[in-house]
Amino acid sequence: MNRMGREAREAAAVLRALPAETRSDAIRAMARHVRIQAPNILAANAEDVAAATSMVDRLRLDDARLEAIALAIEEVAALPDPVGAEIARWQRPNGLDIARVRTPIGVIGMIYESRPNVTADAAAICLRSGNAIILRSGSEALRSARAIHQALAAGLAQAGLPAGAVQIVPTADRAAVGMMLEGLAGSIDLIIPRGGKALVERVSREARVPTLGHLEGLCHTYVHLSADPDKAASIVANAKMRRVSVCGSTETLLIDRSVAATLLPQIAAALGDCELRGDAEARSIVPMALAGDADWTTEYLAPILAVRIVDGIDDAIAHIARYGTGHTEAIVAEDPAAAEYFLDSVDSAIVIWNASTQFADGGEFGFGAEIGIATGKLHARGPVGPEQLTTFKYLVRGTGQVRP
Amino acid sequence: MNRMGREAREAAAVLRALPAETRSDAIRAMARHVRIQAPNILAANAEDVAAATSMVDRLRLDDARLEAIALAIEEVAALPDPVGAEIARWQRPNGLDIARVRTPIGVIGMIYESRPNVTADAAAICLRSGNAIILRSGSEALRSARAIHQALAAGLAQAGLPAGAVQIVPTADRAAVGMMLEGLAGSIDLIIPRGGKALVERVSREARVPTLGHLEGLCHTYVHLSADPDKAASIVANAKMRRVSVCGSTETLLIDRSVAATLLPQIAAALGDCELRGDAEARSIVPMALAGDADWTTEYLAPILAVRIVDGIDDAIAHIARYGTGHTEAIVAEDPAAAEYFLDSVDSAIVIWNASTQFADGGEFGFGAEIGIATGKLHARGPVGPEQLTTFKYLVRGTGQVRP
Repeated sequence: MNRMGREAREAAAVLRALPAETRSDAIRAMARHVRIQAPNILAANAEDVAAATSMVDRLRLDDARLEAIALAIEEVAALPDPVGAEIARWQRPNGLDIARVRTPIGVIGMIYESRPNVTADAAAICLRSGNAIILRSGSEALRSARAIHQALAAGLAQAGLPAGAVQIVPTADRAAVGMMLEGLAGSIDLIIPRGGKALVERVSREARVPTLGHLEGLCHTYVHLSADPDKAASIVANAKMRRVSVCGSTETLLIDRSVAATLLPQIAAALGDCELRGDAEARSIVPMALAGDADWTTEYLAPILAVRIVDGIDDAIAHIARYGTGHTEAIVAEDPAAAEYFLDSVDSAIVIWNASTQFADGGEFGFGAEIGIATGKLHARGPVGPEQLTTFKYLVRGTGQVRP
Repeated sequence: MNRMGREAREAAAVLRALPAETRSDAIRAMARHVRIQAPNILAANAEDVAAATSMVDRLRLDDARLEAIALAIEEVAALPDPVGAEIARWQRPNGLDIARVRTPIGVIGMIYESRPNVTADAAAICLRSGNAIILRSGSEALRSARAIHQALAAGLAQAGLPAGAVQIVPTADRAAVGMMLEGLAGSIDLIIPRGGKALVERVSREARVPTLGHLEGLCHTYVHLSADPDKAASIVANAKMRRVSVCGSTETLLIDRSVAATLLPQIAAALGDCELRGDAEARSIVPMALAGDADWTTEYLAPILAVRIVDGIDDAIAHIARYGTGHTEAIVAEDPAAAEYFLDSVDSAIVIWNASTQFADGGEFGFGAEIGIATGKLHARGPVGPEQLTTFKYLVRGTGQVRP
């Protein structure tokens, strides 16, 4: 493992100095080799699927899904290159010229579970931002991940880039995760975990290097008394039901008491066969199961929605502050003052007015691609694309100045 | 301790919502009460000084130094308020309007050692950026820090702000540091340590929350063969000797072989009574002690300079990559291509061309004030001022959009 770290660090020094176009070429070559090695990747995936006991759909690849992976890689190749961009530049009274420019972070350690596409997406986004990456796939998808990595490595080699730029931990040994969380003797600059609660908890307990964590997305949609009824119904239905398994799906509906009697039935109808679990008041309007304390803190990732009647906007904001995970919350309102107050007061990575929480996505934000949604507050917050995987340095240009 | 955390979190929610001017008023009131309570602060400081066994000069306050502290607080009150500033805003093809706006981080935990001014500076900068702060002073300066905190608290109270906005751990109990590093049950968002190696090591071992670390500043100045001799002499002399105890002071001089015979004597003369420790070649030009391996890795913070003759710019860059701490490095050169290559290739927070490394300072950068210089790569790098103590959130304004 420490040798992988050293090779990643050496590769990072090479990547940092390459022109953007060379990295674009390498990313395109990776996509090409994913297509060339499709039979090998699908065969490896079939073994993973045969051995799988759960999450089989997430794991399964076919020609169409593999082509989608190759296309996603090519999209990253077409994204603007963030490295070297001047973020700010100013002059000081003493004549010093100070520029802040984007630079790669260095070596990213990616620890993830069962989605095979993460292997390719993460490698492409890291290369786009000039970083080397060490991939550690969960055991369920390890054969698929290794086969995809083999294709990525062939692309790198064809482009003349060092193999250390994209490496994969070859086994599912859990000790490897521990070593990555320790930083591989100073080689890893940033850990990005993507997976279930057990992984997230392990990372927060053991990590000795900075992490960009993706915790739960316990997202709320709040229907204000000024809400347009049709917007409320379509937004809540989309926020919950478009895809129930994504982190931006709404898990709790908050609705103002004064409009609940008329709006809740309309929203419930729009939600179709979603199971509702409400407080006593909600149940008196629409028949549903009684919500327990756990319902306010559960990321269902399923067609289940918790429903609470609130006493106005401050009550809604307080509920979100208490139970939310700082991911994404939305307000449905026609009153702009109420909406702006909500946008101001809610301390989540993404706060939305009159749109679905399922827009919480790097692609929907225009970032081109994302490696995850950061729920921490430091460095990056919300969708993490190539730009979020850079840091910066200050370039100070003088003419002989010394400090008095 | 956990109660302090809860009060800080509640205060942070209040600070977040205050207008900038209210926070400016509170900061000015803090300065006013530092002046009012000067006799109390100086008496407490005299007790600290009497008990001190080392670092007495750093610790000692007098009327002039206390007035400098009050003035520094007032300067922070006059700085532009970063909270709420729109960093970016764009429209998506579906009509969604996305804005990225600065928001406070929340609760900062500041763990520091013997400089009493840090108590006031850190509180003012955190308030400027809308954050609550929990201060934990080292035992040597604890009486001074508590007396300064008492003045700050009086200012807060006068301005009507909650006492939880600026709190101090009342004892020197080391267990308090451990609890802060654990995050006080989710209350602390960011730890900023400022102190010696033992503290930094403890923080990197125990912290369970993000940290903005200030590691060593093992800064290099590299004299390129194209250097102007007079600039080289004055820059190196200033970079080392202006103040030897600051983190931006140069600890190692690298000089190109082809100009060493002429330039090194001139630089040595400009350095005055600085002790030089060089490699064999440097010693053959100017008499000096022989540098051992430890000299390339020691942050002297003293009038001692390590000197190495290098084989050109790549050798200099390689030396810095191997021994540097990513803080600040400078090149002295008249050849712009060489200078730009150095600026590009060196991966430090601050890379300087033809000026002294002692410009590594938030004030010199125009940030108005700094709470430290971050040597990590994540979130903030280099001087940490009010803007660097903010994060951001995305505000998404729609008109009923749902995601296809």
